[in-house]
Amino acid sequence: MALYRCGALIGRFQPFHLGHLYAVKYALKKVKRLLVVVGSAQFSYTWRNPFTAGERIEMIWRSLKREGLLNDSLLLIPVDDTYERNYIWVRHVENYVPPFKVVFSNDPLTIQLFKEANYEVLEVPLFNRGEVSGTRIRGLMAKGGEWQKYVPSGTLEVLKEINGEHRIKTIFKYV
Amino acid sequence: MALYRCGALIGRFQPFHLGHLYAVKYALKKVKRLLVVVGSAQFSYTWRNPFTAGERIEMIWRSLKREGLLNDSLLLIPVDDTYERNYIWVRHVENYVPPFKVVFSNDPLTIQLFKEANYEVLEVPLFNRGEVSGTRIRGLMAKGGEWQKYVPSGTLEVLKEINGEHRIKTIFKYV
Amino acid sequence: MALYRCGALIGRFQPFHLGHLYAVKYALKKVKRLLVVVGSAQFSYTWRNPFTAGERIEMIWRSLKREGLLNDSLLLIPVDDTYERNYIWVRHVENYVPPFKVVFSNDPLTIQLFKEANYEVLEVPLFNRGEVSGTRIRGLMAKGGEWQKYVPSGTLEVLKEINGEHRIKTIFKYV
Amino acid sequence: MALYRCGALIGRFQPFHLGHLYAVKYALKKVKRLLVVVGSAQFSYTWRNPFTAGERIEMIWRSLKREGLLNDSLLLIPVDDTYERNYIWVRHVENYVPPFKVVFSNDPLTIQLFKEANYEVLEVPLFNRGEVSGTRIRGLMAKGGEWQKYVPSGTLEVLKEINGEHRIKTIFKYV
Amino acid sequence: MALYRCGALIGRFQPFHLGHLYAVKYALKKVKRLLVVVGSAQFSYTWRNPFTAGERIEMIWRSLKREGLLNDSLLLIPVDDTYERNYIWVRHVENYVPPFKVVFSNDPLTIQLFKEANYEVLEVPLFNRGEVSGTRIRGLMAKGGEWQKYVPSGTLEVLKEINGEHRIKTIFKYV
Amino acid sequence: MALYRCGALIGRFQPFHLGHLYAVKYALKKVKRLLVVVGSAQFSYTWRNPFTAGERIEMIWRSLKREGLLNDSLLLIPVDDTYERNYIWVRHVENYVPPFKVVFSNDPLTIQLFKEANYEVLEVPLFNRGEVSGTRIRGLMAKGGEWQKYVPSGTLEVLKEINGEHRIKTIFKYV
Repeated sequence: MALYRCGALIGRFQPFHLGHLYAVKYALKKVKRLLVVVGSAQFSYTWRNPFTAGERIEMIWRSLKREGLLNDSLLLIPVDDTYERNYIWVRHVENYVPPFKVVFSNDPLTIQLFKEANYEVLEVPLFNRGEVSGTRIRGLMAKGGEWQKYVPSGTLEVLKEINGEHRIKTIFKYV
Repeated sequence: MALYRCGALIGRFQPFHLGHLYAVKYALKKVKRLLVVVGSAQFSYTWRNPFTAGERIEMIWRSLKREGLLNDSLLLIPVDDTYERNYIWVRHVENYVPPFKVVFSNDPLTIQLFKEANYEVLEVPLFNRGEVSGTRIRGLMAKGGEWQKYVPSGTLEVLKEINGEHRIKTIFKYV
Repeated sequence: MALYRCGALIGRFQPFHLGHLYAVKYALKKVKRLLVVVGSAQFSYTWRNPFTAGERIEMIWRSLKREGLLNDSLLLIPVDDTYERNYIWVRHVENYVPPFKVVFSNDPLTIQLFKEANYEVLEVPLFNRGEVSGTRIRGLMAKGGEWQKYVPSGTLEVLKEINGEHRIKTIFKYV
Repeated sequence: MALYRCGALIGRFQPFHLGHLYAVKYALKKVKRLLVVVGSAQFSYTWRNPFTAGERIEMIWRSLKREGLLNDSLLLIPVDDTYERNYIWVRHVENYVPPFKVVFSNDPLTIQLFKEANYEVLEVPLFNRGEVSGTRIRGLMAKGGEWQKYVPSGTLEVLKEINGEHRIKTIFKYV
Repeated sequence: MALYRCGALIGRFQPFHLGHLYAVKYALKKVKRLLVVVGSAQFSYTWRNPFTAGERIEMIWRSLKREGLLNDSLLLIPVDDTYERNYIWVRHVENYVPPFKVVFSNDPLTIQLFKEANYEVLEVPLFNRGEVSGTRIRGLMAKGGEWQKYVPSGTLEVLKEINGEHRIKTIFKYV
Repeated sequence: MALYRCGALIGRFQPFHLGHLYAVKYALKKVKRLLVVVGSAQFSYTWRNPFTAGERIEMIWRSLKREGLLNDSLLLIPVDDTYERNYIWVRHVENYVPPFKVVFSNDPLTIQLFKEANYEVLEVPLFNRGEVSGTRIRGLMAKGGEWQKYVPSGTLEVLKEINGEHRIKTIFKYV
């Protein structure tokens, strides 16, 4: 039974990978309604944020659909970064999403900011963190490694359609 | 049968009213997947935009849920206004949402900008436009008129919870 | 004896007039430390905001000095407007000032937003509101009326130095 | 003989009309090098600023070319508006253009701001101001009047290519 | 006797330390009125700018109060950074503060920009620069070193109240 | 004979050097009208962008004038960076310049973004890339090396007038 009425899973999802999928499944067990907040939504074609918010939403939507995880009570919502104005960031997020009480995140700053705003914060049990992280997957994409096994099939499909590997390799020249 | 794979219904939804509900129903018949784009998402507590994007999403979500219109293939996505940088606005919207081919709107500028960007644009048949418009409903709320019959029950409920009528009356003092 | 440890008097002070001076005196009786927040600080040379934040701080500082109201516990702090992003405005103000518990304001939106953020809000008893308001004083300045009697001598002096009446008349051509 | 080494003619050019052409000719007699600054460059598809900076530059470039007024020493430079941060506007303009000493303008606020920054300001003798102004021309375009005779052929041609009259009529619905 | 009527001491004060206190004392000897400008005021919870402008003002205010340095003629004013638009930064600062003639700073870029704007710039004699700098103090806070002796008691008290050491440690995970 | 009607050479020109001059000559052979787009125009006094857009335009203008390359059909246009909002960057550029069909660039991200927007992109044959690049020239300026031989005389002259080497050395202290 859901412990909370509404929760938010906050991430950048660059790209949406198996660790994120695991986190969605974990969160869905805890809440009746889940907001998946796609952060740093304004950025794209950079090393930290190669994919647009729309592309990331498409990756998540397709991946969750195939897993049978989509339903009435899962919303996908893009939210811009506030350019280091971190003190107002929680309030900024609240502007764009329906009310929620619990936050799912493993990011230390996100955790601290939401705790200070009196949210319940749940860290997601780590899913093979050593191998599955956005940074590592982008690194593998840049260098021609085997990244495909770390993302759900929805993400894989979108990355093929937008030629994501080529994009990452282009951007990697600046790193 | 759906004519289009993906479409976007674009509005400010201040508040979400029966005309908007009618437009959603109309659009759902035409497309397999519907993106409801909540525009001018950064603004709130002004005469033109009294409600936050999160509040508007909540109004739409509850209203559609009660109508049995929510499903896997309806996304609710907030998108900021570009402060009169209209030439880049379509591209700005595209940044935040999955790809779509058709736009539902009755707003002349939205129609023109998307047509110039080679979108198919469908105007929604008017639902009692004389009586049902955001501007008119806000005016009734400000002056103590009978606005309740023009919004779906989901909107009505949210407006009660956030004391929307009082907010409108406060803002009206500046008009 | 002061009821509150710290309070904020929030206004645009375009220009700082006798009603504002009265409000400062009123507020100083209620709090140990007073923050005078000069809002819409980024704007200037417009009809609603003719004077820069620096000019307004100078008007307030000189006026209070002559009244013997300046002391260790009165701070003058400019804060930008958030361009109709009103939902985040209180949090934005909090970023720039030391913590406070009570707000002095007669502006309906300011009052509502701070009340919703659980602040104590005290309305300032009106000081001859019919005659003394920023809008009316600017109108008199534009049209060559007798505005001088409605501002403290510190404001008067600053307005002379910056040739404020001429500035208002220039801007008035656009109204 | 040119009195000044470098001057700037500042306007919005919505659209570039015969009064503007006259001002260019006037300015070219006074300076060795002329900077034509296209202001409010970020805006478009609004009533005050219907055309993009690029479109306006194209209008000016074609019109001047046909008049034989283009040469090495005439630069066309778009500069954004600073959203009512008028105090920093002169400095903002200076960031984008080579150094200049004299300003050509009939706009009261532009004149005041540049004078306060110690520029020489020259007002341009009026060219049939009653009939030839951007506001009036846009009004005629909106209402189907005879506007064509008030713009140079370069402007006329660009307006045809971009279907400018239709754009103005669309925007006019919001006024 | 004060050499200058009004001066500005410009820094980020992350946090306000003994070197800053020394600089305030030095500046107070040179000017009749001192503006302490708290720069990069919009940022917080980052490695370079962990504390909000309000928190920094509180540190300075309490520290100066205990030293008996507060008086009518010392103002604490937060000013935002201009995001690498450095050419307009001096003008931007001038918008927010009363007029001043002399600047106290040891920052090379601040010195250059104000000199180019024809300000008198005074470098502050260094107070044990090897040990007392914001960067070094933040480093000590992050790694559990002895930082307490480098800040005045007002800063120490505020850092305890806001749990500043914990905040720095959280942010340090990203460096 | 020109292959294309209008093309854009896009760069930051920090500073305008012999490689850029070579690129201009190359581009002029391919197009009837050349737009020289001065990117990241809002930035200055930073390591990557030491010079203002106006200063860079002056460098280019003087250098091209001496080479006899200026004419009616070469425009110099400053365009701001979009702060990592790369997806909208091409559209943003298009807002500020007349229509063009071909882009000259050797920057991988610029190339990719314009190709995705269906532009023809021509890479400029490299002019002694090992020795002539903005980064290398700035490095030589910072460290007192021999940079003068890598820039045209117009750039050299402007850099002397604005004391560019001193500026670079000041900024270098932050790198």
